[in-house]
Amino acid sequence: MVVSTFNGSTPLSYSNGTTISLSTFSLNSFVNVEKGDPVAFRPYWEKVRGECAVEIKGDECMSYFGDTNNLCWYMVPQMRDAILRLHNVVGNAVTKDKFLVLGTGSSQLYQALLYALSSSEPSDHPINIVAAAPYYSEYKDATDILQSRLFQWTGDAVLYDKDEPYIEVVTSPNNPDGTLRIPVVNSGARGKVIYDLAYYWPQYSPINYEADHDVMLFTFSKCTGHAGSRIGWAFVKDIEVAKKMIRFIHLNSIGVSKESQIRAAKIIGVICDGYQYLKSIESDHLFFDYCKRLMKERWEKFKGAIEQSKVFTLTKYPTSYCHFNKDLSEQYPAFAWLKCVEGIEDGERYLEKLKIRTRGGERFGVDAKYVRISMIGTDDEFIELCTRLSNAKIE
Amino acid sequence: MVVSTFNGSTPLSYSNGTTISLSTFSLNSFVNVEKGDPVAFRPYWEKVRGECAVEIKGDECMSYFGDTNNLCWYMVPQMRDAILRLHNVVGNAVTKDKFLVLGTGSSQLYQALLYALSSSEPSDHPINIVAAAPYYSEYKDATDILQSRLFQWTGDAVLYDKDEPYIEVVTSPNNPDGTLRIPVVNSGARGKVIYDLAYYWPQYSPINYEADHDVMLFTFSKCTGHAGSRIGWAFVKDIEVAKKMIRFIHLNSIGVSKESQIRAAKIIGVICDGYQYLKSIESDHLFFDYCKRLMKERWEKFKGAIEQSKVFTLTKYPTSYCHFNKDLSEQYPAFAWLKCVEGIEDGERYLEKLKIRTRGGERFGVDAKYVRISMIGTDDEFIELCTRLSNAKIE
Repeated sequence: MVVSTFNGSTPLSYSNGTTISLSTFSLNSFVNVEKGDPVAFRPYWEKVRGECAVEIKGDECMSYFGDTNNLCWYMVPQMRDAILRLHNVVGNAVTKDKFLVLGTGSSQLYQALLYALSSSEPSDHPINIVAAAPYYSEYKDATDILQSRLFQWTGDAVLYDKDEPYIEVVTSPNNPDGTLRIPVVNSGARGKVIYDLAYYWPQYSPINYEADHDVMLFTFSKCTGHAGSRIGWAFVKDIEVAKKMIRFIHLNSIGVSKESQIRAAKIIGVICDGYQYLKSIESDHLFFDYCKRLMKERWEKFKGAIEQSKVFTLTKYPTSYCHFNKDLSEQYPAFAWLKCVEGIEDGERYLEKLKIRTRGGERFGVDAKYVRISMIGTDDEFIELCTRLSNAKIE
Repeated sequence: MVVSTFNGSTPLSYSNGTTISLSTFSLNSFVNVEKGDPVAFRPYWEKVRGECAVEIKGDECMSYFGDTNNLCWYMVPQMRDAILRLHNVVGNAVTKDKFLVLGTGSSQLYQALLYALSSSEPSDHPINIVAAAPYYSEYKDATDILQSRLFQWTGDAVLYDKDEPYIEVVTSPNNPDGTLRIPVVNSGARGKVIYDLAYYWPQYSPINYEADHDVMLFTFSKCTGHAGSRIGWAFVKDIEVAKKMIRFIHLNSIGVSKESQIRAAKIIGVICDGYQYLKSIESDHLFFDYCKRLMKERWEKFKGAIEQSKVFTLTKYPTSYCHFNKDLSEQYPAFAWLKCVEGIEDGERYLEKLKIRTRGGERFGVDAKYVRISMIGTDDEFIELCTRLSNAKIE
């Protein structure tokens, strides 16, 4: 049974029997879908909590070093093995002939890459960092926070026309709008590309090719939902780039938490065991299958709510063949990207009045008619979001 | 019984019954005391390994957030409580009326502080970062790696004579030389001070005052020996500084590993329980007592070896009253700082020939006659180090 204390609402119920706790939302409380905390997958991890438990004793994981035989000396062997195994199971990236660099989330790796891909020579011309708008809202500040002489944020890749070296960040599927992306800079200048593949996992997107780029970023947070662990990784082709990244991470934080590595390796192991040894069990027990169904259901409810409201339009996504699921599939992005209809100029402000907290388009390099909404919050939050959106009217 | 495979050596034996494994050192293998991996305390943690064990289940610690009511939103309450409790037990810092900021080791906090203490206005005059030589070898590179326009490494604080704003880093006890330090800049310009108190714990130094500075850095690594966890913390007086640090850590790594926080809180809890509830047990079971005895014994053996060699001189340390141990005590620094006698100009090269890998004085802003040696490696390594040093001769 689904109960909400929000007066007059008709909460959407789930067909998969997910237990929904009593809503904590009252008329005056905000639904906060501004951030991307990936807690939607927690019910899965509750089911397998014991199986995924790790115990760390007092004398374990004490050293700075994880594997002195590896270029990435702070990475423990079971972390490396788990990451390679995961990509092998999912088929979303070619890992052969690449260096694996571990980071404290992909945020740290992003900074390490800016350092590694820019020239070490002091210069009056920092390399230009660009991404096609709408782009991830944190890239700009993460790039410019220390006002480096090595690199600088230059904005929308589509508009880039300088005859100067640049680095293009290609986020695919894209945050905020979920679209599949390729590089767009066409200025004729020499450029390098960082592929941020944080959302290239089966619950969000068909796995339609094995990514094989020179520089690829992944994060544990958006793959499994364990954002608190701060684990990310990069595959890089060039050993010199890998060495510079590791040097950056050495100076920045002397490596990456060993406890998080042990835990992430265990969690990934449980996911892979499911696919490799337990294919016969009901698919509800397979992580990506469970999450994809969850995302699909959420997107269906969400589209229904948006249609009822007549206030927003949604990005359309193509269907493509998923080599992992072996079926035709849509995109189910971690964020919804809404555009307000004519007459509403500021989507974030409009939704604030409906007590929905979102992130407005300007943060992503486009105009205020757009807003980003997290699709990976709690069930409770999501249901309340849909209720409020479906009641939206043009004033 | 102590056995070494190093031909002709007379290994030093331990009076405290520490088990020493068969030496893995042969004539041709290096003793590496160049780094400061604090593994010396592992035997203590082996004894209490079960008591300190933490179990983390599959659905725990998933969110980016640790405590949304705290300014430091990624810090879990048990981490905060453990840190405050530890300082209360040891009496090495005043925590009242200060903001606690957690970091991925104190390296990340150092960078966060440079950002927080420098002006956010774009400027052609980066603030000068100085420290009295010999200073920690990583400060320079950590400061300059991204060639920031906000701050720049300017070198020895003693030589600083510019009439420009500066930040002085005061490491006390100092790395590499173990001396107790106070600020030294005397240029008349406006300055801020970062106190790096990584080694201000009872095993290394008498706790002779409760530090009460505007900006203080601590690290779990050097306190308990759990370097792999990458946990550090800062106490700062000014809320605006704390906010800027948290903003930096948000963009740099979106917080700090939750697994490490849970673990560090547990380890600190076991140490504090020992002092608060188990005072009657033999002091060998109390962490700081155990470690101080270990450091004292190592320093005695080490001094003996240095005297035998006649090739080096050692820093002299004063004795002072320790409020924690309630006795007069010497310094037992985590590193030994050796100066070669006349006739040897390059200490690092000289010791390389003896198959001892150290870090030379130039890395610390002084001349090559000096070398830094880790005193917190494994027993095996330390015994071999003393044997080789005691055999050193002027050629």
